[in-house]
Amino acid sequence: MSARPDTPLLDTIHYPADLRKLAPEQLRQLADELRAEMISAVGTTGGHLGSGLGVVELTAAIHYVFNTPDDRLIWDVGHQCYPHKILTGRRDRIRTLRQGGGLSGFTKRSESEYDPFGAAHSSTSISAGLGFAVANKLNDKPGKAIAVIGDGAMSAGMAYEAMNNAEQAGNRLIVILNDNDMSIAPPVGGLSGYLARLISSSEYLGLRSLASKMTAKLSRRVHKSLGKAEEYTRGMVTGGTLFEELGFYYVGPIDGHNLDHLIPVLENVRDAEEGPILIHVRTVKGKGYEPAEASADKYHGVAKFDVVTGKQNKPSGGPPAYQNVFGETLAKLADTDPRICAITAAMPSGTGVDKFAKAHPDRAFDVGIAEQHGVTFAAGLAAQGMRPFAAIYSTFLQRAYDQVVHDVAIQNLPVRFAIDRAGLVGADGSTHAGSFDITYLATLPNFVVMAAADEVELVHMTYTAVEHDEGPIALRYPRGGGIGLDLPETPEKLEIGKGRIVREGSKVAILSLGTRLEEARKAADQLDAKGLSTTVADLRFAKPLDTDLIDRLMKTHEVVITVEEGSIGGLGAHVLTHASDTGLTDGGLKIRTLRLPDSFIEQDSPDKQYDEAGLNAPQIVDTVLKALRHNSAGVEEARA
Amino acid sequence: MSARPDTPLLDTIHYPADLRKLAPEQLRQLADELRAEMISAVGTTGGHLGSGLGVVELTAAIHYVFNTPDDRLIWDVGHQCYPHKILTGRRDRIRTLRQGGGLSGFTKRSESEYDPFGAAHSSTSISAGLGFAVANKLNDKPGKAIAVIGDGAMSAGMAYEAMNNAEQAGNRLIVILNDNDMSIAPPVGGLSGYLARLISSSEYLGLRSLASKMTAKLSRRVHKSLGKAEEYTRGMVTGGTLFEELGFYYVGPIDGHNLDHLIPVLENVRDAEEGPILIHVRTVKGKGYEPAEASADKYHGVAKFDVVTGKQNKPSGGPPAYQNVFGETLAKLADTDPRICAITAAMPSGTGVDKFAKAHPDRAFDVGIAEQHGVTFAAGLAAQGMRPFAAIYSTFLQRAYDQVVHDVAIQNLPVRFAIDRAGLVGADGSTHAGSFDITYLATLPNFVVMAAADEVELVHMTYTAVEHDEGPIALRYPRGGGIGLDLPETPEKLEIGKGRIVREGSKVAILSLGTRLEEARKAADQLDAKGLSTTVADLRFAKPLDTDLIDRLMKTHEVVITVEEGSIGGLGAHVLTHASDTGLTDGGLKIRTLRLPDSFIEQDSPDKQYDEAGLNAPQIVDTVLKALRHNSAGVEEARA
Repeated sequence: MSARPDTPLLDTIHYPADLRKLAPEQLRQLADELRAEMISAVGTTGGHLGSGLGVVELTAAIHYVFNTPDDRLIWDVGHQCYPHKILTGRRDRIRTLRQGGGLSGFTKRSESEYDPFGAAHSSTSISAGLGFAVANKLNDKPGKAIAVIGDGAMSAGMAYEAMNNAEQAGNRLIVILNDNDMSIAPPVGGLSGYLARLISSSEYLGLRSLASKMTAKLSRRVHKSLGKAEEYTRGMVTGGTLFEELGFYYVGPIDGHNLDHLIPVLENVRDAEEGPILIHVRTVKGKGYEPAEASADKYHGVAKFDVVTGKQNKPSGGPPAYQNVFGETLAKLADTDPRICAITAAMPSGTGVDKFAKAHPDRAFDVGIAEQHGVTFAAGLAAQGMRPFAAIYSTFLQRAYDQVVHDVAIQNLPVRFAIDRAGLVGADGSTHAGSFDITYLATLPNFVVMAAADEVELVHMTYTAVEHDEGPIALRYPRGGGIGLDLPETPEKLEIGKGRIVREGSKVAILSLGTRLEEARKAADQLDAKGLSTTVADLRFAKPLDTDLIDRLMKTHEVVITVEEGSIGGLGAHVLTHASDTGLTDGGLKIRTLRLPDSFIEQDSPDKQYDEAGLNAPQIVDTVLKALRHNSAGVEEARA
Repeated sequence: MSARPDTPLLDTIHYPADLRKLAPEQLRQLADELRAEMISAVGTTGGHLGSGLGVVELTAAIHYVFNTPDDRLIWDVGHQCYPHKILTGRRDRIRTLRQGGGLSGFTKRSESEYDPFGAAHSSTSISAGLGFAVANKLNDKPGKAIAVIGDGAMSAGMAYEAMNNAEQAGNRLIVILNDNDMSIAPPVGGLSGYLARLISSSEYLGLRSLASKMTAKLSRRVHKSLGKAEEYTRGMVTGGTLFEELGFYYVGPIDGHNLDHLIPVLENVRDAEEGPILIHVRTVKGKGYEPAEASADKYHGVAKFDVVTGKQNKPSGGPPAYQNVFGETLAKLADTDPRICAITAAMPSGTGVDKFAKAHPDRAFDVGIAEQHGVTFAAGLAAQGMRPFAAIYSTFLQRAYDQVVHDVAIQNLPVRFAIDRAGLVGADGSTHAGSFDITYLATLPNFVVMAAADEVELVHMTYTAVEHDEGPIALRYPRGGGIGLDLPETPEKLEIGKGRIVREGSKVAILSLGTRLEEARKAADQLDAKGLSTTVADLRFAKPLDTDLIDRLMKTHEVVITVEEGSIGGLGAHVLTHASDTGLTDGGLKIRTLRLPDSFIEQDSPDKQYDEAGLNAPQIVDTVLKALRHNSAGVEEARA
């Protein structure tokens, strides 16, 4: 636990209204205290550090100038919202960040009226802000929307779609482009180069020229009488920035750590009669904390750390993370297979694609925050004979669902989907949980859907996916480390649609998919101890189902339980559907499906989350016992 | 049937190789014959006309200049691919377009090697083209990728994501922006205005200046020694087009109907050493066919028509289309409810939002081809107290799945989803079928999912959605017209999660969701006639299920059948899951779930498609009879 910093001025600020009573010259001190408090808090809890440090001055300035919460402030993604939480009535809980029952690591509507729109996935803020702005306009109510979005988030198509629609908001919409030349990893693509050029060509602009430029711009409507020329005022055909071409008034670039610049610019923009306005603000990720500034990832996400040294308290040892098992396995297979490619959407480290990229830089593609493009790009590679792996978290693959359906499944193209963060994910909470992929993928014709029960299975499944050229195939695996098995020298090619018996019994059968297998084994031990002989199968495939195995177990066992780390409509549904299609349920077989509940599960430790979800061994046992007590009329009998 | 046009030159062209033997001066005649043949063919079959007419010259020129199929030509969306099909070995089947067993109305990999990537949803072509280009580059193989994309399709974020990644393709990627200033409806947004300015400011450019400009541009790498300046060459910070800013060499605008311009420009671009290149081509949708040019929608999609008069053979009378029942109902409700808004993603007419817009123009929003933005924009409106309806086809809502999950469901915001084209859709085939929405929505916590059994139900459900402020709610309904019921003067607010009994019986229960209800009734009549007393329920809600109703029917009937116009994981899966959760299946109840099969169904008449899917009355009856013949050991007994 780090010592608390001395924060006399910050201690007087409970809400933005208190902040707005300060004189402008006090803001520098406030920002310094805010930064110290944030470093101290994240040192205690771990979490996202670099992004918040980069917007300390911006956060203070926005709340100082704008009338939050009536003016709607929307932080894109939300990694950077900790200073905002400290200033908006949540300082007393800031050391509970990302913990069970504590503050969310993202903005959240249920937490505060100062969070008008929750975020966690990237690039939603301009669309949401436009919704707020238009609603106020329709109702003739005051209130602006301020969307703060990073340069990395600007690579997503959704941000562009929103900008393309922004003009209707007029001066009610203000977009602040927080340009720190970083995504989680370094940013990629044409836009990133463009922003760099924009900044380097404008550096000389001081406050005075900026102000006069703004005045000239924001009063251009005066020249309406010029007729046709008026339509050219925002984006000169060959003279405007990209943002001006799309209909924004562009202001900047300005130094996002210089409060003497920020405050007057924001005041000007607040009072402008024209809009929408985009303010291009340069910030430094990790600003003001030396270990963060010096680190390659700017301390994007950190474990608890020592504030003085910056040393993170990372758990050492333990089995390697699934993402790294995947990345290293694929890199090794690619040594002898020149067709293998790997694609990540701005998450090279999180997906393990960094390992692959190190070995095969020409076949690794970071497409930016652009899952849609990434998947169809992979489809194009596959159509031209390559063996592409789209390595995308389960929750982010949602963003490419149409591309998965339309470009991959309908065309039956062999794109491989390496789906990390499947199931519950701990501290990142419900927005990052991988709850739906079994359901949304297994409903698609042509798809093969696998889930790895452990790291050895992941190695086999990676290889199986490489060799599967018949159509799309997905392998899913959870966040975190494996169970400590030795990895095989030579991966096995699994037979598509075939599971395996892990443990033979006679009365109860547990059909497991994915890493709940360990809990299924534990449950089986406990059931055996109660005299209930239990079979455990690892189905490996949600689609196609191993119907031979399932039929055999259903015909020879009294109770059959499915267990999966996914929501309704997935494995359990497919097993039930098969059983009813074939009449296996007609004979009074007792089937139960354990799955994620019909609710979003908040952040906590994964084990507690699975407890809440009812997917640990005790609940499996309980489900079996309850099923056995049900009589054939569907009524639970009293315990003997 | 229209008389076939006289096409002596076209008759000699079977494949692009034949085309490439012509002298350039023969291409004008070829284009004229190609246009006449296309008009004649679509006159016979109906289909997409305006888009194809606009690219006749472009199609001929591309195949003339490039080495298709080794050079990969990718038509975005594919509405415009009929001339391409005529020139690539499919002329003999061109009068089977969009019919059962005939040619697809879109590009399709299984149809021809000249269709390297199938399309039907918008804005995928640059991503796919980049995949082809990069694969060839990795393998050091020749072959370029040419993506032809419309200005409307450029409003989708996916196109922007792809452009942001295009630089790596170098000169292997050529994007042809087919700018006809149209989407299906007029285009919207900042980009549209930008393209208009780009064109109007450059109109004076003749071929000569265009050529010299190109030469200057495409040889800029000569100046590499300039060092830092080099990075500015493509997009000058304040001097480049939006496309140049993103890393393209921009060529244009050029007249897409002038072969004397098109051919040399394409040849130059083909031979350029730099890239990627974007060619901005102006075309006229419906070009060369007066009735199309004169029509507001440029004959985007037409019924069979008379070539001489242009008069379409539209079926007259009949019940109103579901989309119009929805649009008119919502418009009427909005007369007294100022909170209702309607959002469409470039489909005002297809979704019925045009009816709403006519009555309430300030509350209707066409966001362009931008489903992602549209849904989160709606979420912002809802968060600010409005009652937004996102009216999006089932298949296109896939493109906003993450926004549905992350911005709507997790935040439990009352966005209303009016989901048209649910189920099978006839001539548009598998790419447009609404097969998965029940599954991918009903798996989400907080969601209410309804399906209308007929147009009266749609009226009630629209009103029910208006009044549902507790969270997200979806109503789905099919393509085409209702069953001819009189619409109610006053809509009813349905109780959430409650179905209705349509017909009481005692032995067999059919649980229907959506417009298969008519077939369920027919099946019930036939079963009754066989002495099998049959209940029919319209569940109305896939989520939440009417568990009281279901439990009662399951406890009192011998066979229970679910019927839905959706794939596995939807209603049937939810009913089975409920039944197994509660032990209702323990007693030997016979449940069967009828749903769409695990395959993509090709274009045909909807009735034939449902026959293939097994969702018509005869298959319902058959399923019941087979279930009754199953004995309790799960073995089908011989017919008595």
